[in-house]
Amino acid sequence: MTEKWLVGVDVGGTTTKMAFITEIGDIVKKWEINTNTKDAGKHITTEIANSITEQLQTLGQQKQMLIGIGVGAPGFIDMETGFIYKAVNIGWENFPLKDELEQATGLPVIVDNDANIAAVGEMWRGAGDKAEHLLCVTLGTGVGGGVIVNGEILHGVNGMAGEIGHLTSIAEGGAPCNCGKTGCLETIASATGISRLAKEGIEKQKDSLLYTVNERKGEISAKDVFEAAKGGDELAIEVVKSVSLHLGLAIANLANALNPEKIVIGGGVSNAGDILLTHVQDAFQRFALSRAQEGVEVTIATLGNDAGVIGGAFLAKTSHDKS
Amino acid sequence: MTEKWLVGVDVGGTTTKMAFITEIGDIVKKWEINTNTKDAGKHITTEIANSITEQLQTLGQQKQMLIGIGVGAPGFIDMETGFIYKAVNIGWENFPLKDELEQATGLPVIVDNDANIAAVGEMWRGAGDKAEHLLCVTLGTGVGGGVIVNGEILHGVNGMAGEIGHLTSIAEGGAPCNCGKTGCLETIASATGISRLAKEGIEKQKDSLLYTVNERKGEISAKDVFEAAKGGDELAIEVVKSVSLHLGLAIANLANALNPEKIVIGGGVSNAGDILLTHVQDAFQRFALSRAQEGVEVTIATLGNDAGVIGGAFLAKTSHDKS
Repeated sequence: MTEKWLVGVDVGGTTTKMAFITEIGDIVKKWEINTNTKDAGKHITTEIANSITEQLQTLGQQKQMLIGIGVGAPGFIDMETGFIYKAVNIGWENFPLKDELEQATGLPVIVDNDANIAAVGEMWRGAGDKAEHLLCVTLGTGVGGGVIVNGEILHGVNGMAGEIGHLTSIAEGGAPCNCGKTGCLETIASATGISRLAKEGIEKQKDSLLYTVNERKGEISAKDVFEAAKGGDELAIEVVKSVSLHLGLAIANLANALNPEKIVIGGGVSNAGDILLTHVQDAFQRFALSRAQEGVEVTIATLGNDAGVIGGAFLAKTSHDKS
Repeated sequence: MTEKWLVGVDVGGTTTKMAFITEIGDIVKKWEINTNTKDAGKHITTEIANSITEQLQTLGQQKQMLIGIGVGAPGFIDMETGFIYKAVNIGWENFPLKDELEQATGLPVIVDNDANIAAVGEMWRGAGDKAEHLLCVTLGTGVGGGVIVNGEILHGVNGMAGEIGHLTSIAEGGAPCNCGKTGCLETIASATGISRLAKEGIEKQKDSLLYTVNERKGEISAKDVFEAAKGGDELAIEVVKSVSLHLGLAIANLANALNPEKIVIGGGVSNAGDILLTHVQDAFQRFALSRAQEGVEVTIATLGNDAGVIGGAFLAKTSHDKS
């Protein structure tokens, strides 16, 4: 029996990541293409299909080698039909992604939210370590999340489960969020939120290294904040503590309700590593019930940008095993 | 084919509620006995068994009429083995409830947490209206909770899921909670919490009706607060709003993560009805994502004290159907 491959696809606003992945989750080959947002994104599925064909040719393989495709996409998705209601960054609106990609590739396609497939990827081959109950929080430009329960992605009644970035951290007087509410976790723990907190801070603490950073670059990135904190800058440490407090509180509250085995923190901001993790763990321990704490490990994601394609491959595998 | 019955048992610190229930969830006969906490609760299973036999005799039925027993109990429980680690109010410690009750009755027994079986009861025959994704919050002396996902109780990695009462509502300077933390939802939205808030309030607002209530009775119950609020008492309304704000925020945060179809508020405090519900709904709408709101109804439990026995019967039925 020849080993077959799964295809993981992670569609982002700028690039689409793709990979051929074995049935045990090893990446055989990964690559990316630009996401063509022209004409409301209608060329994307053809370009994904062509790119898969090209890569197969390069590797001297036939399409029979492929089991199916698992795709992660941003926006509001009907998981059962693979229909995208709206993906603002891409231009899709009422777009039948599953059907279009199946037609273009001749392969079975399964679609899910990008934060959800990242969570599944971390569960299968990353920091989740096959935990059946797992929370994944992705700290990037925004804050995304995925909830895994009994080994499966939780979608909820209309596919909105996992919106951890929109838990309210500040009930009164919080910063406005893209979702229309105020004080969401995303306004604090995203790269954008961290940058905002730093900028607010330098108004009062002009002796901070971050003040100089802002004078020089005209901006303060989340990375600047973590670096300054590592160097002992007071304001930067204060910002990291505040971010960690709100993030730790949010995940502790969810842990009290969901009792997960792993809580995985991923996304670009998680590259900060220990300086973020230790403060988040401190806050988590303060707010989680002791028996919920006993069962859980709070940790940093390990798959980086590969989480999406690996998660996509897992969905393709699971869907194939069931059929 | 004769219709058979399920047995629902809801063990509380003072009384144990029991019922014979049909396979579609109709109560044939319900009754209760005192919970005998003597000798670390070791007589309870025999007394439950004897009581079931007596009731069968009264109804002129044989034991073959019974399919199995579903029991709800307080405390920390291993759901798979039906082993109670600790149930303080009852005296059980490392007590093999499932095994003991199976031995005493000769019937298959399934055990779960009391808040969880109440949630299942409301799902099956109450306000949950068969919703596959449901949150149930029980406002009594404490605050309990049950999370139902894909039609099944969520237990999590070590059986602690659903501890909604211990979501932290006040991160800094909250009141001490029985769990050892401070500022838990339970310190605010339980009957005890509401009473505490009212007592704190009358120190400053001596013109409140609640001040007079306290002078007369030496205490202010949650019921007193809701009645005074209905009568327009300012302090009482303030307390109800504060309780509702924290409860609405907690369930909105959970709804953003879990995307349930129903959120059911039960327990003695929920008897307050609309004056509680409308304020909780207001807060919920403020803090839940609009698409999560579209899918969900926040409502008051309808089964009252029967939720537990009906939920127990449902578990007995599900367990029997699977075997």
